[in-house]
Amino acid sequence: MDMQAFFKMSYGLYVVSSSDGARRSGCVVNTLTQVTAEPAQLMVAINKDNLTAEIIRGAGRFTGTVLSEDAGMELIGRFGFHSGREMDKFAEIPFAEDAAGIPYPTGHAAARFSCRVVKELDVGTHILFIGEVEEAERLLDEEPMTYAYYHRVKKGLTPKNASSYNPTEKAAVREAPKKESWRCTICGYVHEGELPEDFTCPVCGVGAELFEKVE
Amino acid sequence: MDMQAFFKMSYGLYVVSSSDGARRSGCVVNTLTQVTAEPAQLMVAINKDNLTAEIIRGAGRFTGTVLSEDAGMELIGRFGFHSGREMDKFAEIPFAEDAAGIPYPTGHAAARFSCRVVKELDVGTHILFIGEVEEAERLLDEEPMTYAYYHRVKKGLTPKNASSYNPTEKAAVREAPKKESWRCTICGYVHEGELPEDFTCPVCGVGAELFEKVE
Repeated sequence: MDMQAFFKMSYGLYVVSSSDGARRSGCVVNTLTQVTAEPAQLMVAINKDNLTAEIIRGAGRFTGTVLSEDAGMELIGRFGFHSGREMDKFAEIPFAEDAAGIPYPTGHAAARFSCRVVKELDVGTHILFIGEVEEAERLLDEEPMTYAYYHRVKKGLTPKNASSYNPTEKAAVREAPKKESWRCTICGYVHEGELPEDFTCPVCGVGAELFEKVE
Repeated sequence: MDMQAFFKMSYGLYVVSSSDGARRSGCVVNTLTQVTAEPAQLMVAINKDNLTAEIIRGAGRFTGTVLSEDAGMELIGRFGFHSGREMDKFAEIPFAEDAAGIPYPTGHAAARFSCRVVKELDVGTHILFIGEVEEAERLLDEEPMTYAYYHRVKKGLTPKNASSYNPTEKAAVREAPKKESWRCTICGYVHEGELPEDFTCPVCGVGAELFEKVE
């Protein structure tokens, strides 16, 4: 099996979020896909370990937000490389709520879709949620972020619990730097210059011991 | 519901094919998505009316082929705008077969994945097939075709039985032409110059009566 073949597939980059009233959370996915037009239904695959999956199952709802190209690694790191069990991901960022009270980020967001879960399917490590779209809205007039752009321009990596985690990815996205720099092996963030011993990654929060020098 | 919001989602463009020995067919989709990494599983949504869905259900297998940017409208039209009940889509084009004998197009193909169906889910007009990847291979070293490229550069339309059919699409992709031209309302093919009465679309095969003048 040629793992490099998987890099030929194309996706967008999304935040999928939910709330059961008591808790709210969200995570980054590349799997949000329209599966039917009449009625409009979206599918999303979420790792069973993610708090977001647990909340969606309880609430029976999710909102999918299309990230725009100008979304920074801080926003992607917040939703993609942290657990909602350790932090309120919507604290300190701009967000709105849909008619059902599900929060979604409004900074660096090109569109959002509010869905009512009508089916789910257990596929092993992940659950597929099928949601009927009840609200669809364009937000900022920015280009949508593609998964290719995230890898190529943002130099972002894919976390281990993602649908498209690929152990060969690090070698594929790494490029020769111009000066000394250090890459976070968890999220792909690149720190330029010397790395202090007490450094913590501004995107995913891990320590300097999880950085590797970019040769 | 703002239908324009759906254009903010990103996809690739794929041929999904299958064979039960007696019959072979394939169709164009934008829904092929990796849903788990361990083991690697792909999901694809196929319209129930498509012969390809019928064959996949019988064979329990499908192959997903990533189209490359240089794929022409003839290839896309062959798999996307014709029914396998009326023609053998693999006649007259280069193709290969995977270990299980499933054919896949090899011209304008960036990669292919051979999958054994492990689950399916009825979502109304479409069926979601979940396939465990048994073979993955890079093919031609060309850029993968994205759904955005298909719309923007190829000026292609989305057929009515597609997951992402959107009645507002025609207005969105149309641009002012430099000289007299006629657009096929079924597949988006543009004919430049006068349109003879007996003209048939080279991509999807419909007659001149289904062309509209591009203003």
